Amino acid sequence: MNERLALNECVGGVTAPLGVTAGGLYCGIRKAKKDLALIRSDVPAHVAAVFTLNKTQAAPILVDKQQLEKSPLCSAVIINSGNANACTGERGLNDAWEMVDVSAQALGLPREQVMVSSTGVIGQYLPMEKIAAGIRQLSAQLTREGNKDAAEGIMTTDTYSKEVAVQFTLGPSVVTIGGMAKGSGMIAPNMATMLAFITTDASIPHAVLQKALNYANNKSFNRITVDGDMSTNDMALILANGLAKNKPIKDHTEEFQLFCSALEYVMIKLAKMIARDGEGATKLIEVLVTGADSEEQAAGAARAVANSNLVKTAIHGADANWGRILAAVGYSGIDFNPDNVEISFGDVPVLKKNYEVVLDEEKARHALVQENVVVTINLNQGHHGARFWTCDLTKEYVNINANYRS
Amino acid sequence: MNERLALNECVGGVTAPLGVTAGGLYCGIRKAKKDLALIRSDVPAHVAAVFTLNKTQAAPILVDKQQLEKSPLCSAVIINSGNANACTGERGLNDAWEMVDVSAQALGLPREQVMVSSTGVIGQYLPMEKIAAGIRQLSAQLTREGNKDAAEGIMTTDTYSKEVAVQFTLGPSVVTIGGMAKGSGMIAPNMATMLAFITTDASIPHAVLQKALNYANNKSFNRITVDGDMSTNDMALILANGLAKNKPIKDHTEEFQLFCSALEYVMIKLAKMIARDGEGATKLIEVLVTGADSEEQAAGAARAVANSNLVKTAIHGADANWGRILAAVGYSGIDFNPDNVEISFGDVPVLKKNYEVVLDEEKARHALVQENVVVTINLNQGHHGARFWTCDLTKEYVNINANYRS
Repeated sequence: MNERLALNECVGGVTAPLGVTAGGLYCGIRKAKKDLALIRSDVPAHVAAVFTLNKTQAAPILVDKQQLEKSPLCSAVIINSGNANACTGERGLNDAWEMVDVSAQALGLPREQVMVSSTGVIGQYLPMEKIAAGIRQLSAQLTREGNKDAAEGIMTTDTYSKEVAVQFTLGPSVVTIGGMAKGSGMIAPNMATMLAFITTDASIPHAVLQKALNYANNKSFNRITVDGDMSTNDMALILANGLAKNKPIKDHTEEFQLFCSALEYVMIKLAKMIARDGEGATKLIEVLVTGADSEEQAAGAARAVANSNLVKTAIHGADANWGRILAAVGYSGIDFNPDNVEISFGDVPVLKKNYEVVLDEEKARHALVQENVVVTINLNQGHHGARFWTCDLTKEYVNINANYRS
Repeated sequence: MNERLALNECVGGVTAPLGVTAGGLYCGIRKAKKDLALIRSDVPAHVAAVFTLNKTQAAPILVDKQQLEKSPLCSAVIINSGNANACTGERGLNDAWEMVDVSAQALGLPREQVMVSSTGVIGQYLPMEKIAAGIRQLSAQLTREGNKDAAEGIMTTDTYSKEVAVQFTLGPSVVTIGGMAKGSGMIAPNMATMLAFITTDASIPHAVLQKALNYANNKSFNRITVDGDMSTNDMALILANGLAKNKPIKDHTEEFQLFCSALEYVMIKLAKMIARDGEGATKLIEVLVTGADSEEQAAGAARAVANSNLVKTAIHGADANWGRILAAVGYSGIDFNPDNVEISFGDVPVLKKNYEVVLDEEKARHALVQENVVVTINLNQGHHGARFWTCDLTKEYVNINANYRS
């Protein structure tokens, strides 16, 4: 975090920034749960986005990439849950474009200013009649207080909605950033691998905004994992409408640094909520690797540990099994000397250099039964570090995923 | 499989080849289960081995690598289960050497002709007094029928022992290959990542034997995964004592091809037993990728599918969720066009080109409730294929691994 950044959390999620309204409702895709969300900026906003690296990309991802090429501005984002519109071929593409068109028409916007996103089951066609009717209804009921409904409208197996908003000053202006996200299952490293929608009233041009998003995404959504799988639909998108009237943020300035730090704060907060809410999870696990030769090496080691089913089940059982952690670092592909590694659970050291086990089972167990478990791995080699977040692996994960479609 | 190879399965496991004896007993490491195994060749055998690629390597791995440098011959292999002797530093290395020395002394062998292997919990010291006494006792009771006891002595969370033996002719000679393995948990791609001990009475020099082992290992133990983790202790080792009196097998000959095919057969059979017996597993899953540009690409795609927690839980629930399979191929890193992919479960097609879903839920479910499930993925691109084996992911996996140490 930037030390000169004075950040205050505030209420409101995606509608916290000036000039943003939102809403969510049930249109008939899911079983009696909200399944449609809409975000609207009163004035056209600069837009930036990051998309899944999966080669199998869902229809809305393909549509949004085309939209971004056509226009750096966006005024609305329409999102459905319950159906991913992935692996649906030509018809799926047409459906995604229809979601764009119906929204543009209902809101009186140019077609190129609407982005679309979907999440849910793969390989089924969208019920377009229900969705079109839902979009028309939703367009007429967007409010400044609609953030919560919108956040609920994008949930799938999430057990709670995920929102955050912060304010900070840039010169004489107060800038607000708000966001909402959905996660659960298929939350993996490399790119968003979830859905996140972020809004801000900052004035910041498209290209600078994209750079800030890439920076913050790399520190947040690229640092969480639930099951190592990477979805076909994942994206993070940010709208910046400039209504805060700050001097437009330029690259290589202090204002840009402050904005990046605030965005990083928002996205890490959302990312941790996603990791904590992994399918069947009972706790959030933070893996902190220090003493690495580079941030990439630290992140690589942290990723391997966070992705290990063996580590995640051990922590679920509050078992201080540091051997599995050392084994995971061992196959992460990074360069290190196992003899020098030190491991702690919370503030309880368990392993010192040269495999000196200093484990106090009682204290370690106490650190591991917490809802937030921090695993610190010091490689004692260099001066770089990285954090990765995940959840424990439970029987409930198996329960949920053995029967997801039914 | 080589078409000119006439292979007969026979009884006996590692003691099926001429001149090999073995045994196993309980020495006090595990709780009232066999935890020590010894294999002996009457005459010094050529030896070859492959080891884990994990940077955190257990003491016996480090010892065996030194032994291989000193001598191409080996007469005995001592193995304990219940304790991996990994992350045990200097004392662990001394303990591994002591296992070698006690065995050599008890059997009257030169020190450099004994290999050592351990499996079990990481980070605890071996109870050397018990082990030394166990080795002395075991050395005196090796028999031609001791294969089953030996196979039981290397088990950890395995639910059954794993043995196979085959015979085939090379010219006028009958050659036998036998083997035993242990798996369960931490069975992952890249190198052995389990323990396998193979014996043969073929006459084949050290370097040629190593080449055959590398070939067969790449088609078998490198093609199985249980939880994607890679252990610190894994190895596959083969002894060839030459008592079949065949003309010594040379590289680039038909005899070499036949030997490689027979070894591949033995090792695939063991590998499948290991995958089927993954912790908590209820079924064996074979992932067959065809129509790829190269065997590497096919294996890469098959590995991603076999490693996917989402695919493995879906198959556990007999859910014909082909979308998760396509998503896993999508992030495998291979080059392919999702539009062209076709997927079957058993002989039931579920997806044709251009996302045409031909899924008969009833038939697909029938294919998925079998104990052996074959998932075929045709990329419709090139002419290469590869198989990968894994098991389903169940609540019992979580049960076992949340409480392994206790």
